[in-house]
Amino acid sequence: VQKREIQLMRLNELPAETRDGKMLSLKANIEIPEEVDAVESHGADGIGLYRSEFLFMKSSTLPDEEEQYDAYSRVISAMKRRPVTIRTLDLGGDKLMHSMNLHGGVEKNPILGWRAIRFCLSHVDIFRTQLRALLRASVHGNLRIMFPLISGVQELKEALAIFQAVKLELQQENIPIAENIPAGIMIEVPSAAMTSDLLAKRSNFFSIGTNDLIQYTLAVDRGNEHVAYLYDPLHPGIIRSLKMIIDNAHKAGISAGMCGEMAGDPLYTLILLGLGLDEFSMSSFGIPQIKQIIRSTSILEAEEFVGRVLEMDSPDAIVDFVSTTMEDKFDITG
Amino acid sequence: VQKREIQLMRLNELPAETRDGKMLSLKANIEIPEEVDAVESHGADGIGLYRSEFLFMKSSTLPDEEEQYDAYSRVISAMKRRPVTIRTLDLGGDKLMHSMNLHGGVEKNPILGWRAIRFCLSHVDIFRTQLRALLRASVHGNLRIMFPLISGVQELKEALAIFQAVKLELQQENIPIAENIPAGIMIEVPSAAMTSDLLAKRSNFFSIGTNDLIQYTLAVDRGNEHVAYLYDPLHPGIIRSLKMIIDNAHKAGISAGMCGEMAGDPLYTLILLGLGLDEFSMSSFGIPQIKQIIRSTSILEAEEFVGRVLEMDSPDAIVDFVSTTMEDKFDITG
Ligand SMILES: [Mg+2]
Ligand SMILES: [Mg+2]
Repeated sequence: VQKREIQLMRLNELPAETRDGKMLSLKANIEIPEEVDAVESHGADGIGLYRSEFLFMKSSTLPDEEEQYDAYSRVISAMKRRPVTIRTLDLGGDKLMHSMNLHGGVEKNPILGWRAIRFCLSHVDIFRTQLRALLRASVHGNLRIMFPLISGVQELKEALAIFQAVKLELQQENIPIAENIPAGIMIEVPSAAMTSDLLAKRSNFFSIGTNDLIQYTLAVDRGNEHVAYLYDPLHPGIIRSLKMIIDNAHKAGISAGMCGEMAGDPLYTLILLGLGLDEFSMSSFGIPQIKQIIRSTSILEAEEFVGRVLEMDSPDAIVDFVSTTMEDKFDITG
Repeated sequence: VQKREIQLMRLNELPAETRDGKMLSLKANIEIPEEVDAVESHGADGIGLYRSEFLFMKSSTLPDEEEQYDAYSRVISAMKRRPVTIRTLDLGGDKLMHSMNLHGGVEKNPILGWRAIRFCLSHVDIFRTQLRALLRASVHGNLRIMFPLISGVQELKEALAIFQAVKLELQQENIPIAENIPAGIMIEVPSAAMTSDLLAKRSNFFSIGTNDLIQYTLAVDRGNEHVAYLYDPLHPGIIRSLKMIIDNAHKAGISAGMCGEMAGDPLYTLILLGLGLDEFSMSSFGIPQIKQIIRSTSILEAEEFVGRVLEMDSPDAIVDFVSTTMEDKFDITG
């Protein structure tokens, strides 16, 4: 095991390039600034998902602009010029009630509830404060901003309008911000997948959030022991959704990434390569193994593999085929 | 108002036929056998959704095979040879716990939980009893069986296997059942929409359950006051899903119906006609008005209308266009 680890760590200096020359981006998911060291030591070429929620959960009051600015700046500076993708607040109303002295009542189906961008668009003060902190921190490096749980064009327009207004406000206050900060969205709601052609025209990048996308698409709360068995990244409905999202991103000339667990699971690397995914974001520790798979295959091979998966209509057959292939070719057991 | 009602009631004897000769089927949704009178008096040509849940909710014990047989037989006989679509149990585990002396714990997200076909496939005894009662009742008329919440091919195969086994069992007991009882499915999970081509090959008909389909596709619990505003049948992601489902049904040579609220709302009749929907099922009282719209338009007009809706990418523009058109053409206000 140690020998294998040393071997994997040697990969750090090598690019995530397929044998036929496609360069992939492998990024890290982090929750707190302290994780940046692990990001460095595992060869990530950026941060694909910085979850800003921790700042909002750790105390009983909302973090102010300065506190957020400090946290974002630390991560952005530490990563030097490499991209740092910070997701705006992705919490449910229930989780924030304590810090806001609000009493919104208990939600019956919080996963389908008042969360993420929905919550931010109805609490513009909280959203603006976060965007101010982000924009101010942008001068320290290479920031990308990402909105979670976008369900359609309308919400994206609203979020972008507030983003523009905050930019203008800072400019009028003569506070420096970086130029051309990319604003992307998570694709994790089925309606966003279904309208990804429209959303791609208005976003600078996509990041597919498979955990939620799979839950919604299959109508399954995977935290529910009675139905968790239905949660399946290889369901043909999921593979087809991923294909649609990635194809629509490329048609609009933007990159398609993924920051859900599927991106860090080596069982799915060949499928995601074949579907055309450009960027994989995951726990730092998973990066070397995914890189190794990428470096030992080709896009041609991956596309041929996906072609066969897309022709199969039995989920059992797909799972068998994927497991067998990944074990034979890469020694990966699913 | 009374004059209008009389006028509408006169429609009972006329078919739901467009001006260019497409014959639509207008059916009724019912919950209890007593509603059959209203079905008759409003000109329904069958029952598109008989919710069997009432039988399971009205007492603290599960209904046995005889009690179910009686209820189903009454409705099937009363409707003579017109089709009666009975949906198998569509309850959540939580709702049945009392009658089963089970303690499965409270679900955090019941809408994404242990419901409907999922519950039946893990309680095969309850499912078999219902299927036995249904099959025995089938000799009294024209029964169609419908499975709710199918998420993919695997679940459908399992449900059909049990259905076949129960049929065989009854035949071996020399209990008469009707020949060729159609078995269809509700399309209400996004993954079912995404794989509707595969499901159509294994079903005798589709019935689109828009209430759940919209909730899952938009990731919205419409019972949640904070997010109910997002629930929108005209979201481009919904319209495109409906188109995909209906097109896939037709490619496989089966009919596409709808039994969600959208089918009974006159605001959406022209869109649904243009998308190719074959069967509208709704509360009996809504049938005359929907029939009047169908009789005063053509498929050509409806298709042209849908073509324009599908080209629009702004939800606001779609809502405006649909409301204005329906008001101008049919005096319908949305
Ligand atoms: Mg999410
Ligand atoms: Mg339903």
